Amino acid sequence: MLNFEYNVPTKIYFGKGQIEKLREIKSAGTKALLVYGGGSIKRTGIYDAVIAVLQEIGMPYLELANVAPNPRIDSVREGVRICREHKLDVVLAVGGGSVIDCSKIIAAGTLFDDDPWELVKDARKIQTALPVVTVLTNSATGSEMNGGAVIANPATKEKLGTGSMAILPLFSILDPEYTMTVPRHLTAAGVVDIMSHTFENYFTPVTGGYVQARICEALLLTCIKYGPVAYNLPENYEARANLMWTSSLAINGLCKWGQQVGWWSVHPLEQELAAFYDTTHGVGLAILTPAWMHYILNDSTVHKFAEYGVNVWGIDQTKDPYDIAGLAIERTEEFFRSLHMPAKLSELGIDDEHFAEMGQRVESRTLRGFVPLTAEDAVNIYYSAL
Amino acid sequence: MLNFEYNVPTKIYFGKGQIEKLREIKSAGTKALLVYGGGSIKRTGIYDAVIAVLQEIGMPYLELANVAPNPRIDSVREGVRICREHKLDVVLAVGGGSVIDCSKIIAAGTLFDDDPWELVKDARKIQTALPVVTVLTNSATGSEMNGGAVIANPATKEKLGTGSMAILPLFSILDPEYTMTVPRHLTAAGVVDIMSHTFENYFTPVTGGYVQARICEALLLTCIKYGPVAYNLPENYEARANLMWTSSLAINGLCKWGQQVGWWSVHPLEQELAAFYDTTHGVGLAILTPAWMHYILNDSTVHKFAEYGVNVWGIDQTKDPYDIAGLAIERTEEFFRSLHMPAKLSELGIDDEHFAEMGQRVESRTLRGFVPLTAEDAVNIYYSAL
Repeated sequence: MLNFEYNVPTKIYFGKGQIEKLREIKSAGTKALLVYGGGSIKRTGIYDAVIAVLQEIGMPYLELANVAPNPRIDSVREGVRICREHKLDVVLAVGGGSVIDCSKIIAAGTLFDDDPWELVKDARKIQTALPVVTVLTNSATGSEMNGGAVIANPATKEKLGTGSMAILPLFSILDPEYTMTVPRHLTAAGVVDIMSHTFENYFTPVTGGYVQARICEALLLTCIKYGPVAYNLPENYEARANLMWTSSLAINGLCKWGQQVGWWSVHPLEQELAAFYDTTHGVGLAILTPAWMHYILNDSTVHKFAEYGVNVWGIDQTKDPYDIAGLAIERTEEFFRSLHMPAKLSELGIDDEHFAEMGQRVESRTLRGFVPLTAEDAVNIYYSAL
Repeated sequence: MLNFEYNVPTKIYFGKGQIEKLREIKSAGTKALLVYGGGSIKRTGIYDAVIAVLQEIGMPYLELANVAPNPRIDSVREGVRICREHKLDVVLAVGGGSVIDCSKIIAAGTLFDDDPWELVKDARKIQTALPVVTVLTNSATGSEMNGGAVIANPATKEKLGTGSMAILPLFSILDPEYTMTVPRHLTAAGVVDIMSHTFENYFTPVTGGYVQARICEALLLTCIKYGPVAYNLPENYEARANLMWTSSLAINGLCKWGQQVGWWSVHPLEQELAAFYDTTHGVGLAILTPAWMHYILNDSTVHKFAEYGVNVWGIDQTKDPYDIAGLAIERTEEFFRSLHMPAKLSELGIDDEHFAEMGQRVESRTLRGFVPLTAEDAVNIYYSAL
């Protein structure tokens, strides 16, 4: 097990009716920037519930709406402009991971002298930020309980991750009922995203993180049990609650610290897809994850896939390790299919035009992950997923 | 799943050599009360390492030594006296759970107008406290990452738990190497304590906390794998590291929130043992846990024991649930025996003299747990463990 520092001071208010705790935003600031996405929160009544609390406590606010999935740096810049112009001092994100990520960089960008894209390119520049409060409406990215953010720059075809303790939310409200109206395909994509965060930590070259590995399996088992329930019965509270809490735990450090140094594999591959094709994050992950698993399965990795197969999929441990590994990958693919995820990039209308460039860009970043991958490896994985 | 608030801001520095992070105590205060136990930290060099850091940063300190297992309110009173007399403003606990618990109530008692035993009898009175920093030397109570404390009052034969966010450690240093010199029987008792904390949350009447249940199983599996390793190979880093992190996670809220309201079963039974006989906490738990399991096994609880048997002990799930439950309890007893724990109270020289009084006192407290227990139930459990 590696040395680590675990520090997750974000306070979580979890459960039905916890929106009333939004009153505590008073302790964080005096004037809020309310950030949200395409307007679904207006249809579902979440917007009204948030506004009611802000009015009750007499907190003035301005709005930044229309934050897109794969949130753009232009939205960040607009949020920074509003915060500065109106001297807003707290950022309230109401939405899923994209809205929260955008809000975090707005919070840091407002107190930063240069263009906020610099904060995305170099996380070390995030030294301070306005306080961030979140009301979560989708179970997926875990951004509600960590200091990470992923922002896209369409002008440069980049989608990059950044992060800092300075942008960790002060508190987050997690009401599972707020996720019941998430469309099925986004519920499914969210489940894949949670599983992928877990995989990125579970498949690690670091040994000795036994308790972390078992916790990863606990989260994967939860996704496998409740993903289909939430897909088929969107208003099932138990499913929504388990997925929501699992989304936070998958990427708040619990799965990572001590057994992973933060070098991921499938997320960097997917971020290039999103940068070039604006794919839905979880959809890209559902296609690339099995392709990556098949590609890196070899004598030095088979033990981990066998562990995964036995502990997560209940495959007979007396079988040959390669048989267990193959079955485990197959079960993973089947599970994603059961959530009606596409299995191939071609189903998204993607061809190989940009693969070489994407591979180069992936290699130039920190694509070290479970097995180090070259640009050629990345291209091979893209082709195998085509 | 129940609503919950999750808020664990204690920072953890985990791993070899992390004692250097003790320098950060400078941010917490200017003069420290150094609290420790019977002197083993002097034999192991941990004391010297702590003093070296305090000297390096120029932080004056006074000492409170000889804090006993089942820490006494008299030690708390003495610590409070020293802190007040010398205007100390930070409490540094170097030890296991007893030292940390004692330190927490010293930290609160120093800023409290009445006798500190009032803080133990009524947790609501703990409103503020000096900052607490811990250097952990035993994996057991989890006190390093939560706001709980258990203090004994020999004068009244009471051992009571209390707690508050106000006494949550600011940061804790968890170096697994610091636990390598823990005597075997205390290593074993610590493993039982970690498992018992997990059981208290796992065996719950609340349904729907699936992810919490799977995480509980992850922690139990870790104890079962590494308990015997740490017992037989005290210097095995991997075992010490996994047990140390598991001790924190078992009782920092991760296993509890959403699936348990905090009503425990075996701990209250054991606390009466300790109050009357000063038993080692984990030893008492090892004897009482299987007795409690046998006693409460019935048609309304068998499903949970079967879940435990299948998921933790790998018992064939096609067997009859009562058979699985019986085997699971048997495996639990065998496991404790493999750690050389006594199986009966009589082995500790305890007879039934105080059982009736102990039962009454248990009932008068909040003994509601997985299955509500009356004084008569408690006495029956004590007899079955005799």
